[in-house]
This record gives sequence, structure tokens and C-alpha cells, in this order.
Amino acid sequence: MPEKILTGDRPTGKLHLGHYVGSLQNRVALQHTHDQYIMIADVQALTDHFDRPGTITENILEVAKDYLSVGIDPNQTTILIQSNLPEIAELTIYYLNLVSLGRLGRNPTVKTEIQQKEYKDSVSVGFFCYPINQAADITIFQAEWVPVGVDQLPMIEQTNEIVRRFNRLYQVDFLKECKAMLSHTSRLIGIDGKAKASKTLNNAIFLSDTPAAVKQKVFQMYTDPNHIKVSDPGCVEGNVVFSYLDAFHLDKAEVESLKAHYRRGGLGDVTIKNILNHTLQLLLEPIRTQRAALSDKMVQEILQAGTQKAGLLAQKNMQTIREIMGIAKRWF
Amino acid sequence: MPEKILTGDRPTGKLHLGHYVGSLQNRVALQHTHDQYIMIADVQALTDHFDRPGTITENILEVAKDYLSVGIDPNQTTILIQSNLPEIAELTIYYLNLVSLGRLGRNPTVKTEIQQKEYKDSVSVGFFCYPINQAADITIFQAEWVPVGVDQLPMIEQTNEIVRRFNRLYQVDFLKECKAMLSHTSRLIGIDGKAKASKTLNNAIFLSDTPAAVKQKVFQMYTDPNHIKVSDPGCVEGNVVFSYLDAFHLDKAEVESLKAHYRRGGLGDVTIKNILNHTLQLLLEPIRTQRAALSDKMVQEILQAGTQKAGLLAQKNMQTIREIMGIAKRWF
Repeated sequence: MPEKILTGDRPTGKLHLGHYVGSLQNRVALQHTHDQYIMIADVQALTDHFDRPGTITENILEVAKDYLSVGIDPNQTTILIQSNLPEIAELTIYYLNLVSLGRLGRNPTVKTEIQQKEYKDSVSVGFFCYPINQAADITIFQAEWVPVGVDQLPMIEQTNEIVRRFNRLYQVDFLKECKAMLSHTSRLIGIDGKAKASKTLNNAIFLSDTPAAVKQKVFQMYTDPNHIKVSDPGCVEGNVVFSYLDAFHLDKAEVESLKAHYRRGGLGDVTIKNILNHTLQLLLEPIRTQRAALSDKMVQEILQAGTQKAGLLAQKNMQTIREIMGIAKRWF
Repeated sequence: MPEKILTGDRPTGKLHLGHYVGSLQNRVALQHTHDQYIMIADVQALTDHFDRPGTITENILEVAKDYLSVGIDPNQTTILIQSNLPEIAELTIYYLNLVSLGRLGRNPTVKTEIQQKEYKDSVSVGFFCYPINQAADITIFQAEWVPVGVDQLPMIEQTNEIVRRFNRLYQVDFLKECKAMLSHTSRLIGIDGKAKASKTLNNAIFLSDTPAAVKQKVFQMYTDPNHIKVSDPGCVEGNVVFSYLDAFHLDKAEVESLKAHYRRGGLGDVTIKNILNHTLQLLLEPIRTQRAALSDKMVQEILQAGTQKAGLLAQKNMQTIREIMGIAKRWF
């Protein structure tokens, strides 16, 4: 039996090239070797988007299309919608009792995010508690692996603390500690060169962008502001076009040769942008074709089947957890 | 249509005379004029009893028997088990987003309880969040009235803040603000005279106590330590026997006459304890008889029927709330 992986996305917008290099590519590979569950985490997205749940819900279908169009195979990967599984909410409520307020407040990931978003004590209780909700996401499926970046390691630790406390308290070994599958991909920079690519910052190339939109974004990319004339020597570091060529061009030697040429002068921005545009169009063309072949109905059926499979597993495991804890028999 | 009341108990132990005067008597009356729901709040009890859920579960049947034996009529009152309704957990998770961490920490009821229990920041997140859980309990049934003591008024205010925020945010008036039905009964003191009657302090007379146990507890009651000889003048204030006579003796004039006699001397503790014992045996005798007539199976069927009725209502209202919020359609 292959080991289980849980991964997912908050459906706050369509997926972009940053997701492609950061996680999607990896998931396409992992589905051959692991029992992969991908959760569309709409409940978690609501922790900081509760004022517009409609948008979150609309994005579910788009995100699912992004998955399917890059090659996530619903026969190998279970795609599920978090809000459809009330067992996760139920388990979260029980887990809340196993974490102290002090411990949760010291969770570095949450602390940092609260600082970054300048929430202070106006942070919602839901956002503050989301590591506990994530522990329920992971453990209700008994997932063994969770792909994360280094900054999310404290979430894994929080989950495993809950697992150990539960097992010790109720003298079982039913809950499984999970392992972090560390991603070594560096984050894809935005086309403005300022920060990582994101929908919010409007600096990302989406998987569903038209060829014209992709080309336009490539030609908007930040390069080297001192590289005025073609003959000028140019800087490769911090140059978004080269970051993207590094990430997406299949011929690494060719990229190195372009970098050298750019550095010594004589290689124009229009040329390298044309090369990048060609590279991205080649990458995105089959994704676009795949996407065009997906009807809403097909995608809904895939989501329904995945959610049902995941839901049956969640029901079964929640039932076991209730029995372990000695919670009242379900009469309803 | 009579207005709906939600009330309930944490099933942390069998109910005692303190519950009888504090709430049960009132509930027996209210079921004739209101659509009364009584929740056996086992999930809430777990917030500070998560280390022994089995005990909580065992007490559910005892508490239900206490209800039925004092005259709660399952044809007039819906008795339900909280843990059977995952919709409450689901709604709680959404409500967590509508309350800021700062606001919840300033809730006076929670603050006081955390101080009393000397939890500091080792308080569990579940205990800290229980006002939000209570808001879900109340609103999922659209209860209009909640019987509370003055110390619990902040809980009602917290619930109504969530109601107003939800309705404003999603531009509906579906959730109803609830009103506090203030109880004016003073708390029944424990037989030791030190604190309110409670199971934890082992100073309570239980509804299910045997006649011998009741008599023994009455004769253990704290009276006036300076009232040595029968002829000594005695003090009525702080004298547990007179507190109980005030609460349970049907003839108030007779109690006043006994108090006067006790104050001037000549009325022995044994005499007043015999009078109180007689009063309590008269009160508890029909309750005991009623209880003896209840089989576990009957009580389970009543709980099942009440939980099912409440569960259908919770499902229906949660479905409406999901639609209002624009949460993804339930496929599973």
C-alpha cells in the first residue's frame, strides 16, 4: 500500500506558474508513487476571507481545472472539498481541547503571519486556530506525508504534538505522526521583480492565461533597469526573465549561455523575452488544451467522486476516534 | 407558535438539589409555555474534561433520568445530545472567524473562569473558545430565550454580537438575537455551608440519593457552631438547614416561625434537621419513584427521538446558513 500524502490549496484564486513550479509539478510526479489526497481548503480560506465566501466557492472549480489541466489524474489522486466534510470540523473541536492557548500563540508560523498581516489582537479566532484545523485535516485521513516549505515546519510539529497527546491520553496509537516532505524549490518571483508571484499582487502568470496575456506579462517583466542599449552589459541577478528561464527553460546549458551573453552585452531584452515567451507558450499550450477539454460537469463529477471517497474515509476514521474517546454513540 | 428556549447542562455528574431549585423546577414550568430544547452538552463538558470523556458519556443517561424524574416531559421538551450534532461543530468553525482574539479574551465570563481555575495561558483553546461554541448551540436552533444567571450575561452578548456580525456581513436577518431569561434564584449552598452545592465539592444532595443518604447528609449539615445547647439562642443566617428550609419547605409562614424560635433559643438542631429531612423526603419521594420506573432503554429511546428531532432542525438551519454564506454545495 503506497503511503498517503495530504496536500492542498486555499481556493483564493486561480493557480499560476508559482504554484506550478512550487507544488503542481511535484504532485503530478507524486501521484505515481503515493496515495495522494489534494484538499481544496475552502474552510481554511474563509479564516481570512469570511467576508466573501462566494468568491472562495467560485474558485473551487477553477482550482480543480488547474489541477486536472496540469496532469493531476483523478484515478491516481483524490481531490476533495474541505467544507463537504463536517467530520473535520468535529475533530477540530475536539483537538482544540488538546492545545493550550499559550502554545498556540507561540506557533512561529501563526505568529509571523499575524505580524505580516498586522492583525495584532484583531486577528480572528478562526485564523489563530488554523494550525489546529490543519492537524484535523491531516490526521482524519491518517496522512503520512505533508509537502511543506521550511516556514511551515511548525505546523507539522503542532500536528504531531496533538497526535502524541491524543494517543497518550486515550492510550492508543491510532493517530499517526506525519512527516514533512520538504520542498526545495525556491519561490517564483512576480513579474514585477518585487515579491513572490501572487494573485493579490497581480504579478503572476496564471495557468489559464491566454497566449496574448502570457506574452504581454512576459514583456512587462522587470529586467535590468541599467541595461538600456542592446550592447550594454546586463545584470542577470534579480532579472525576472532569467529567473523564469531558470525555472522553465528545459535546456539549462542554453540558459547559461544566454546569461553569459547578456552579461557581456549584445543580448537585448526583447530577444530574451521572446525566448521566454516561447518557452512558456510551449509549457502552457498543452495545459490550455487540456483545460479546454474539461466541461464544468466533468470537473464537478470528479470533485464529487473524490470528495465522496475522502468523506467515507473521514467518516470511518472519525467514528473510530469517537469510540476511542468514548464519545456518546451516534443515534443521529 | 410558542417561542423557543435553549437550555442545558454539562453532563459532568448527576443532578442535585441545587439544579432542582436553580433550573429544573423552572424548566418543568416553561415547557408548558415555550418550545423548550434541553441540550446535554457533552462536547462542552469535554473542554475541561477531555482527559475522561468516558465519564461524561456515562453521565448522559443519568442526567436524562434526572430530567425525566422531576417532570420534564419528552412530549413537551426536546432533549438532545450535543455530540450527536456535527452541525454545531461546523457552525462553530465558521463563527470562529467572526470573533477577534482580543474580543474573546475580554469576555468577562471566560476571564473569570480562567482566573478561578488558575489556568493562565495553559487554558485549552477549547475552553477559551467555548462562548463561540455556545453561540452555535443557541443559534443553530434559532432559540429566542436562554435562561441564565447574571454572571452569564456576557455569553448572551457574545452570541448576539456574532448574530449581528453574521447578518450584517451576509446581508440577511436569518440569525436571531436571543434574550436572556434571568434567573432570580440564589444559588443553593452546599451542606458544608462553604460554597454552592456541587458534585466536585461533594457537598450536594443528589436527586437520585437514597432516603438514608439524604437523611445522613441533612444530619451532616453545617448549622450554628455556637448553638451548643437546645436552649441557646441560634443563628439562622449562614445556617444551611434554614437555607434549605427556605428553598424547599412549602409553608413559608411555618419556616418564619421556626426561625424566630431558633433565634430565641429552645429549638434544637435535631428537630430542625428532622423537619428538613421530612420536607426533602416528601419532595424526593415522587422523583425517586418516577426514576425507578425508567428503564435505560426507555430513556435511550427518548434521547434518540429528541436528538433526531433537534438534529433535523440543525441540519435544515445549517443548510440555510451554508447557502447564505455561499459555501460550496454539499455533494457528500
